[in-house]
Amino acid sequence: MNTIRPGLIWVVSAPSGSGKTTLCQRLLNWSPHLIASTSCTTRAPRPGEQDGREYFFLSQEEFERKIAGNKFLEYAQYNGHYYGTPRLFVEQQIAAGLDVLLTIDVQGMKSVAARVRGGDFAYPNSLVTVFMMPPSLKMLEARLRGRGTESEEMVQQRLRVATEELAYWRDYDYILVSGGLDDDFEKARSIFIAEKLRVSRQPKDKPWQVNEQSF
Amino acid sequence: MNTIRPGLIWVVSAPSGSGKTTLCQRLLNWSPHLIASTSCTTRAPRPGEQDGREYFFLSQEEFERKIAGNKFLEYAQYNGHYYGTPRLFVEQQIAAGLDVLLTIDVQGMKSVAARVRGGDFAYPNSLVTVFMMPPSLKMLEARLRGRGTESEEMVQQRLRVATEELAYWRDYDYILVSGGLDDDFEKARSIFIAEKLRVSRQPKDKPWQVNEQSF
Repeated sequence: MNTIRPGLIWVVSAPSGSGKTTLCQRLLNWSPHLIASTSCTTRAPRPGEQDGREYFFLSQEEFERKIAGNKFLEYAQYNGHYYGTPRLFVEQQIAAGLDVLLTIDVQGMKSVAARVRGGDFAYPNSLVTVFMMPPSLKMLEARLRGRGTESEEMVQQRLRVATEELAYWRDYDYILVSGGLDDDFEKARSIFIAEKLRVSRQPKDKPWQVNEQSF
Repeated sequence: MNTIRPGLIWVVSAPSGSGKTTLCQRLLNWSPHLIASTSCTTRAPRPGEQDGREYFFLSQEEFERKIAGNKFLEYAQYNGHYYGTPRLFVEQQIAAGLDVLLTIDVQGMKSVAARVRGGDFAYPNSLVTVFMMPPSLKMLEARLRGRGTESEEMVQQRLRVATEELAYWRDYDYILVSGGLDDDFEKARSIFIAEKLRVSRQPKDKPWQVNEQSF
């Protein structure tokens, strides 16, 4: 038997200002088996962007045909453009033993969870969901302001959205209250390592790491 | 609210020769909140041993009265003496926010799990079970021989017991195939960190690490 151990889908959700982007970059640098999912989008490629690398670029018609055909684990519209996570692409990475990182919002997580755990995916036991939250709304507000790139109106708007999203933390598997870059990374890495060791994810006969001929 | 976050019960089982003792010692040194459980026993105190420190020393009558009164999370007999994990003692440590480490065998784990998860314990969601196994029986045999302290007969006996115990790995939450001291410690520590972050272990209203007045 030379079966490849299937990878996991990692969903990380967080209100903007939680440190999610930095954390995910560190996780991607750390694990040679972790890749960011490549999304489909209907927005036009920017100079230097390559189809299949930054995004899979689709026409609106193609995108909507894929929606109708249940080809997305989740999709959403931002600024008049569709963005979606292609189911088959993720399935292929998982089958090849790679972990796929999705940084999506609460609605996206619910859609992914419904499809993956609902059996609309080849690996129903492959999903792990992590919600990152700031230790307080005050802290989040301070971070959003600290960027200095956003208008007061935008800060207030982001805070409103964050407050709404924070209400859904119980729908996730893990909660990571952010406490600094190193601390966040240490926690997230621990979740990654631990989840691979769960008995429920091992083959029936023996764990993945055990030598084939020995038990 | 100044509620103390309750601790967790950590069960680590492993056949002898798996590196369990070293691993547990490193975990105890690492976490200021982790303590080894103090067992009750009917064997006589050795010079220097103190009641309530190494063991709670009981007479056979006292021990059997406690068995009848369901005062143990698990107990067993070795070499004609009883050894048991006192339920109330563990409950008090958990209530005080400490994690309690139990290094017991498969039968002990089953007994603890039945009591804790069966509701015969004040914190039914406090148990995490880890099974440690060698990457192969050959490796285990080499380690047992490598000690140089045991007769061939004893080595064979330990191997028989190990083979029996290994069959129960699926009854645990986590499987840790030992791969060297640092690797084992890294994995076990990750499980410890991750388990504290599970949403299912947080209070209903907000996670433990979130500031009280802020959400």
